[in-house]
Amino acid sequence: MKILVTNDDGIDSAGIAALVNSLKEIADVIIVAPSEEQSAVGHGITMKYPLRVFNYRKNGTFFGYAVEGTPADCVKMGIRNIMQESPDLVISGINHGSNTAINIIYSGTVSAAREAAIMDVPAIAISVTSHEATDFRYAAKVAKMLALKVKEFGLTRGTLLNVNVPNFPEEEIAGILLTKQSKAKWDDIYEKRTDPYGRDYYWLTGNLIDIKDESDTDQTAIKNKFVSVTPIHFDLTDYDTFEKMKSWNIENLINEKVN
Amino acid sequence: MKILVTNDDGIDSAGIAALVNSLKEIADVIIVAPSEEQSAVGHGITMKYPLRVFNYRKNGTFFGYAVEGTPADCVKMGIRNIMQESPDLVISGINHGSNTAINIIYSGTVSAAREAAIMDVPAIAISVTSHEATDFRYAAKVAKMLALKVKEFGLTRGTLLNVNVPNFPEEEIAGILLTKQSKAKWDDIYEKRTDPYGRDYYWLTGNLIDIKDESDTDQTAIKNKFVSVTPIHFDLTDYDTFEKMKSWNIENLINEKVN
Repeated sequence: MKILVTNDDGIDSAGIAALVNSLKEIADVIIVAPSEEQSAVGHGITMKYPLRVFNYRKNGTFFGYAVEGTPADCVKMGIRNIMQESPDLVISGINHGSNTAINIIYSGTVSAAREAAIMDVPAIAISVTSHEATDFRYAAKVAKMLALKVKEFGLTRGTLLNVNVPNFPEEEIAGILLTKQSKAKWDDIYEKRTDPYGRDYYWLTGNLIDIKDESDTDQTAIKNKFVSVTPIHFDLTDYDTFEKMKSWNIENLINEKVN
Repeated sequence: MKILVTNDDGIDSAGIAALVNSLKEIADVIIVAPSEEQSAVGHGITMKYPLRVFNYRKNGTFFGYAVEGTPADCVKMGIRNIMQESPDLVISGINHGSNTAINIIYSGTVSAAREAAIMDVPAIAISVTSHEATDFRYAAKVAKMLALKVKEFGLTRGTLLNVNVPNFPEEEIAGILLTKQSKAKWDDIYEKRTDPYGRDYYWLTGNLIDIKDESDTDQTAIKNKFVSVTPIHFDLTDYDTFEKMKSWNIENLINEKVN
């Protein structure tokens, strides 16, 4: 099995190192990851600027390819240019901080896996639920187990698995659950400050507001110390609204007399 | 009606000016847009750096607020900080170049409208299908007509309309169609070059590969000179795969003996 590994915390992060160590037991691992941290870049790709790729060394030996770009750039570049063939699986992570609910939209980690799914390669995004996480061993083991499951069962074309692992030792983990994306959203707050030159600037902060009666979502799972596994895809069509909007008769708008 | 207008081409683009002119006939318009072009940034938000906001003047008069950030930043900042209330509608555009099929994922224009939908504000993203477009009058009229439709019928919470207008004069437009997101994807090509210092770099290029037998998609509509209107949402759960994956019994993984 050939696995392409990437992330959004950067090629020198502890999370990707733990992931690679675990996956090497079951696969050939190729690492193509951002040269610098790329959190909250969403599904950005680099088109206005050229991309550069460097060999990244760790303790004197070649570790992987560092790309001066986004996580999605790394997957495109890794498959099209570096490997020049499709791997059996792409795994993105292990991210510091949870990627549940609406955070999926903003996440560079998830977007990398989604880019793989777009390229018809099965993919997994994996995160540990704390920004202060230092022990990635259990999450790395979960990644390995799920890689073997994907090998066994296959994954629908265009689908990726978004995995969140509570930041607790293995013996405190309650279990592993198949979940849906929570509807929880952020209550955004912009903190206003003034720079030494008297000019205002703003920092984005806020809180993720939980939804009370959700039972089978990613948010509920991690709150109860379960590993959450959510299948996600990139068909954004809202089919329910598509049906409802037939009553709008928008095809008649072409004849409406509006200046 | 209060409409917040943003885009990804930047506050000084011709597309946003045409949109604002048209919408002013039916609404109070507040403009909060990126100070610089932000194409293909996806749903990135600014968290590592502070955000700055400037008053942007055009021909000596105040035009709108310029944000040194992404389109999604503009919507958050516009609603939370500048307006401090929800507008009736957010419109993002008019973008140079089509946002159909998989491009929806990469698009800053669509992500701005999606950010509004996340904040429970009805939203429209609108694009003209050519990067060389110079006449935005018909697209601006379509935006106005659809704004009135949204006012009349309302829009499901969390749904936005992604609109693509063929780059032709009004009299050559074939009609307006309700569509679904096409499955068409890019065949990515990285063009390798060498800089004056002997170092390699890569430019991303490629072609969108059409799907042969799609009938009711955004891609098919614009190819046939129809305006395309696609309802999209941000629930990324793949419900079909969710059902299929029940047979994986992942809850048993917790007991598997893997080192």
